[in-house]
Amino acid sequence: MSATPGVGDYGPYFPGSRKIYREGARRDLRVPFRRIELGHMRGQDGTIRRHPPVEVYDTSGPHCDPAVEVDPREGLPELRADWIREREAGGAVTQREWALRGVITPEMEFAAIRENEAGEGAAEGREVQHPGEDFGAGIPARVSAEFVRREIAAGRAVLPASRRHPESEPMVIGRAFRTKINANLGNSAGRSSLEEEVEKMRWSTLWGADTVMDLSTGEAIPDTREAILRNSPVPVGTVPIYEALRRAGDDPAGLDWPLFRDVLREQAEQGVDYMTLHAGVRRDTLPSALRRRTGIVSRGGSILARWIQLRGKENFIYEHFDEVCALMREYDVAFSLGDGLRPGCLADANDEAQFAELRTLGELTRTAWNRGCQVMIEGPGHVPLHRIAENMERELEDCFEAPFYTLGPLVTDIGAGYDHVNSAIGGSVMAWHGAAMLCYVTPKEHLGLPDRDDVREGVVVHRMAAHAADLARGIPGAQVRDNAISAARYDFRWRDVINLCLDPERARRFRYGGDSAAEEEEVDVRYCSMCGEQFCSMRMSRRVAEEDS
Amino acid sequence: MSATPGVGDYGPYFPGSRKIYREGARRDLRVPFRRIELGHMRGQDGTIRRHPPVEVYDTSGPHCDPAVEVDPREGLPELRADWIREREAGGAVTQREWALRGVITPEMEFAAIRENEAGEGAAEGREVQHPGEDFGAGIPARVSAEFVRREIAAGRAVLPASRRHPESEPMVIGRAFRTKINANLGNSAGRSSLEEEVEKMRWSTLWGADTVMDLSTGEAIPDTREAILRNSPVPVGTVPIYEALRRAGDDPAGLDWPLFRDVLREQAEQGVDYMTLHAGVRRDTLPSALRRRTGIVSRGGSILARWIQLRGKENFIYEHFDEVCALMREYDVAFSLGDGLRPGCLADANDEAQFAELRTLGELTRTAWNRGCQVMIEGPGHVPLHRIAENMERELEDCFEAPFYTLGPLVTDIGAGYDHVNSAIGGSVMAWHGAAMLCYVTPKEHLGLPDRDDVREGVVVHRMAAHAADLARGIPGAQVRDNAISAARYDFRWRDVINLCLDPERARRFRYGGDSAAEEEEVDVRYCSMCGEQFCSMRMSRRVAEEDS
Repeated sequence: MSATPGVGDYGPYFPGSRKIYREGARRDLRVPFRRIELGHMRGQDGTIRRHPPVEVYDTSGPHCDPAVEVDPREGLPELRADWIREREAGGAVTQREWALRGVITPEMEFAAIRENEAGEGAAEGREVQHPGEDFGAGIPARVSAEFVRREIAAGRAVLPASRRHPESEPMVIGRAFRTKINANLGNSAGRSSLEEEVEKMRWSTLWGADTVMDLSTGEAIPDTREAILRNSPVPVGTVPIYEALRRAGDDPAGLDWPLFRDVLREQAEQGVDYMTLHAGVRRDTLPSALRRRTGIVSRGGSILARWIQLRGKENFIYEHFDEVCALMREYDVAFSLGDGLRPGCLADANDEAQFAELRTLGELTRTAWNRGCQVMIEGPGHVPLHRIAENMERELEDCFEAPFYTLGPLVTDIGAGYDHVNSAIGGSVMAWHGAAMLCYVTPKEHLGLPDRDDVREGVVVHRMAAHAADLARGIPGAQVRDNAISAARYDFRWRDVINLCLDPERARRFRYGGDSAAEEEEVDVRYCSMCGEQFCSMRMSRRVAEEDS
Repeated sequence: MSATPGVGDYGPYFPGSRKIYREGARRDLRVPFRRIELGHMRGQDGTIRRHPPVEVYDTSGPHCDPAVEVDPREGLPELRADWIREREAGGAVTQREWALRGVITPEMEFAAIRENEAGEGAAEGREVQHPGEDFGAGIPARVSAEFVRREIAAGRAVLPASRRHPESEPMVIGRAFRTKINANLGNSAGRSSLEEEVEKMRWSTLWGADTVMDLSTGEAIPDTREAILRNSPVPVGTVPIYEALRRAGDDPAGLDWPLFRDVLREQAEQGVDYMTLHAGVRRDTLPSALRRRTGIVSRGGSILARWIQLRGKENFIYEHFDEVCALMREYDVAFSLGDGLRPGCLADANDEAQFAELRTLGELTRTAWNRGCQVMIEGPGHVPLHRIAENMERELEDCFEAPFYTLGPLVTDIGAGYDHVNSAIGGSVMAWHGAAMLCYVTPKEHLGLPDRDDVREGVVVHRMAAHAADLARGIPGAQVRDNAISAARYDFRWRDVINLCLDPERARRFRYGGDSAAEEEEVDVRYCSMCGEQFCSMRMSRRVAEEDS
């Protein structure tokens, strides 16, 4: 991690882009988008055709707003402080409770405005989109705040927004909404510093991470988390068992409920928005998990399995689930019920251990809902392509449509070095079938810790997978950007083509290799230099079309 | 392109691998595989457990056999010269004609042996595999030579093996077989040399390209092709209209049937194994294609569209299709009926222009079959994820199950710089549903010409997509390598994990960054250094399992 990206704006990464806001029902409700300005085109008859800008969902927060000066030691402005304060003493606490009372919170409105990425019809080509196939997701033509409320009340969506993380820009996770992606941060023993982790968070959200998880297991866990939280414009998730194990001297035998409860409370106090809790790893499902080809590959799952074995007791998170719910409700921390028994290889996919745990997670979901908490469910892992739909269907049934948050899945075990692609394949299919959020995987998966380039690569390919799924599910307006880039391509508006890409900086570098003269020159060239003038299909095609009309 | 990879062996790219051969019914029928030797494991009780090697399909040819010395100026040994000679004066010419007569050629046997990658049961974990879902592909438990014959006779498979390319190692393309991938080579005007293209071919086949296409449009087209053919262990495809256009002085108006026929014959004489012919671009479908968002994006398609417009006549390849068939039959060049009207963006996917052309290709398929020729059909392009299956179903119906050879498809238009991933997503789903071969896409797609690293990246991710599809369709033995790597991972046999990867050299570099001391050290470490000893889920899981038993 070296230079700070996006200070004041999007830096060199998104040329032609600037941050804009759409205002909601109250003055302090301003929803950010990244507006991509397009060039104008002079036709052969001399007339100028103007192309309206394309506005896209923006996760980068105030870090990319030149009007906001962010001092990482101070943290971000507290966007939601008033909203949270105004609700105090209202009786309800969590977004779920307000939703059940029929109240639309500012957070719900904010998230709703955000979902309508393509705006109110300004964009060209809005009407051109393939009808989707959404497997019952119930995607509306336009996302209203009331719709967000209803989805949260029904448990079909989660709005992770801790009362102690007022800096975050609200977003909603559910299969009726745009597919979200998560990027993992966090140090391991002896690796990477606090500053690096904060920088990685900013870098991830610049590229499009909708949430980040701090998976630190190394030194200074609370300080790292504090720094990330105060600077994060997106919800932050954690896996509290990691810190608990550290406090137990790295010995699972030293864990117990009081220790774990303290960790939960301290993390909740800091403002963690959602927590992975492996409450579904139960004593009676362990034997089948241990007979598998790769046993238990979830770190949290294996720690709890060891504890269960050493103590000869039931999982303490399961046993104390009511107390956990009370604590989660108090701060509105969303549950991310962890799949501690997720398959670690294809051979173990969709097996009894996995599905037994899923049923337990369903039970717990109901309990948590009854206690006013928000819940999402974590999913695999490694699953062959043709058994992905089954995973999704089971989750919807066993967990009553609570949002599914999956890791990939990877569709083969032999892809190390390219597991980001492996995960993008499985993730796009999973999200099409209904997964609400994909956890990113980087090229270093299974091999080492990701560096800055790996994080970018991981985020961008999962943004692509999420977008492919949004198109397939039929999210309204999802095709606007595709249509815009294709029109630009046919016009040889190269600058627009590049600026509309998921990663304009890379596209530009690949095309011009830093040769700015070549870039300037191409602005007026009416063919693509790859195939050369005579072999340019689009040039030829346009010519045929023009002479034909 | 610099150093020559794999001279004498697999170079530094596949450590622990060596080439082996399985013999067929005749002594000169030796089918290559890459054998990955696995390490032995000393258990905690001191016993040594031996892991049998894993043998995988090998496209690299004699270039990676240390027993064969290849001089690129001389070309490869003529593996099939005797087989071809023995058949002369037999009346039948093409593999299809022999198949229809009930004759199993050595090529069919060779291809059959090759398909049974996992061998005869030596590999561990052979019995563990998810049953596939093959949409009627009719995948057998074991591929016999007779089965290959039957599939070719039925037109459901193609065995591209020109009589003039005796150097090639036979392989079969069809949806009852392993999914194949193609890598494109070829210079454009003023770019890359002959040596570079030959080297790119060797590089592609080292990583797993099952065929290569020479798409040269620049200088010295015939010489480049000759050099590639004489050194290529895999079938070589071309798009003859490119060379024809060059000869017509880059002016479509200068094209005509006699000129095109000469090009076809000369290319067939040289030994091209399959040719893309855009015979389906017809006069009456042009208007609908020209009204599209991105018109015609196939180079061949646009050239023919222009010719049709200028001359006011029907496509000359369509008009002279009988003569084309006679010529293709004479050399046993397989048809690859080009989709000149394939969609160039999502908005144009699955439209009338595309499907009208597909129906024409179906008609032509029947004609070519009746003339004894082998046929495959080229497919899109750009298609949203949820409309991929429809493409495949239409192709199977309209083209009578002739093998489908698709370019991706890309599932979004905004992925430039990452279009290899985009294509791997669409390609894996398309191949699962029945595509027999995927044309690779590199990270430079839409932006520039691929370099050496791009080619490798493109081939490897498409090998991954193909493998994911093979697992989904249920190709017997497809999961053996996944099972082996997962077992190795659970044993912390890091060397085996790396050697079993699709790209071991990259996996090793990502893990150790060239630090060989770290690599040596890890051989005996019983945890994964990523999470550290205390947070290693597999270590914990093994420990729980061991103490539990």
